[in-house]
Amino acid sequence: VAASPYPYPLPVEHTALVMIDFQRDFMEAGGFGETLGNNVALLRTSLEPGARLLAAARQAGMLVVHTLEAHKADLSDLPPAKQLRGNLPPELRIGAEGDMGRILIRGEPGNGIVPEVAPIDGEWQVHKPGKGAFWATGLHEKLQARGITHLLFAGVTTEVCVQTSMREANDRGYECLLVTDATDSYFPKFKEAAIEMIRAQGGIVGWTADTAAVEAALAAA
Amino acid sequence: VAASPYPYPLPVEHTALVMIDFQRDFMEAGGFGETLGNNVALLRTSLEPGARLLAAARQAGMLVVHTLEAHKADLSDLPPAKQLRGNLPPELRIGAEGDMGRILIRGEPGNGIVPEVAPIDGEWQVHKPGKGAFWATGLHEKLQARGITHLLFAGVTTEVCVQTSMREANDRGYECLLVTDATDSYFPKFKEAAIEMIRAQGGIVGWTADTAAVEAALAAA
Repeated sequence: VAASPYPYPLPVEHTALVMIDFQRDFMEAGGFGETLGNNVALLRTSLEPGARLLAAARQAGMLVVHTLEAHKADLSDLPPAKQLRGNLPPELRIGAEGDMGRILIRGEPGNGIVPEVAPIDGEWQVHKPGKGAFWATGLHEKLQARGITHLLFAGVTTEVCVQTSMREANDRGYECLLVTDATDSYFPKFKEAAIEMIRAQGGIVGWTADTAAVEAALAAA
Repeated sequence: VAASPYPYPLPVEHTALVMIDFQRDFMEAGGFGETLGNNVALLRTSLEPGARLLAAARQAGMLVVHTLEAHKADLSDLPPAKQLRGNLPPELRIGAEGDMGRILIRGEPGNGIVPEVAPIDGEWQVHKPGKGAFWATGLHEKLQARGITHLLFAGVTTEVCVQTSMREANDRGYECLLVTDATDSYFPKFKEAAIEMIRAQGGIVGWTADTAAVEAALAAA
């Protein structure tokens, strides 16, 4: 893949596409993200490239992993520090009843992936209690068992759940690439900074490339 | 502690100061960081506040944890992805012989903490193979056994090892505060961006405050 800071090898059989938290809570009007004052339109520009990336990965037969930030209904996996952070009023806390069901609770209407990039049979879904996809999920063990060494990252938001997951993956020895137009943030300057940090110092966290570059590499594979 | 985005509680008995990677490799002229083309002077401004913070924590009887990015001499904890990243020539790779001993190898001269903030007896030292202090170190289990719920972070570099460790800690339920003048980066714009990302959205990763604010809170405790 034509990438920064230098070309990225893409061994399709050993690569997974990781779609981070494309969930209604964050992406749709009336969801939790918007309730907190964020502009969801800033995230939705990643959907068209995200859908193209997903189609290309499926066409190539690549493993696809979808993550959701999601807690158990009994909140047993919700640390008090996370529940109370931000001094939010009780009705805006995780587990409270919101316009799309209980906020960030697994299985509630808001906690589904938006239709543009929805999973199909055979793709993995990972429910994660943290920002990172590798904490308390068993994802690393499952990827290792499958022989995965390379990860392509897309999703939201760039500097929070995407960056955190990519840093975890990098420490665990994966070769990671962030697809820059298939990720978005509520804060465009944070998206740009996260992208720059990731590919700095010779790719200290990994590579970056756009969807077209990944599509071209897969078409040629 | 007077902090951003809002005051930070500081239960001294349940708090640890985590000093990230203040090691000669990164901080001193002739070390690995400088060899890669970085300006170590940009990191050294964090040393005076870091030393004050350390003194205040010791005075308060707080647990102190020092981390080092360090690999085993046999490189068994070095993923190939990390060893080869950046397309560095063999003589600049981790494990190669450098001016301060083998690069990033535990126990080598470069892999010691600089004298300004060196550990004393009773303080913990954590050797970590990744950027994050919680991957493959057992740190979380040790902190839990000690009843630690709050973490103050200092060290280098802000957007790499400090940010990664703080994001891991946040997912694990710790209340984290980054001490802004006791951390530095080779890239000042990345330091600023990391600080802003951490305290955004109501403290999505945690709090930020300067050394003087922490000193004042500890003096009043």
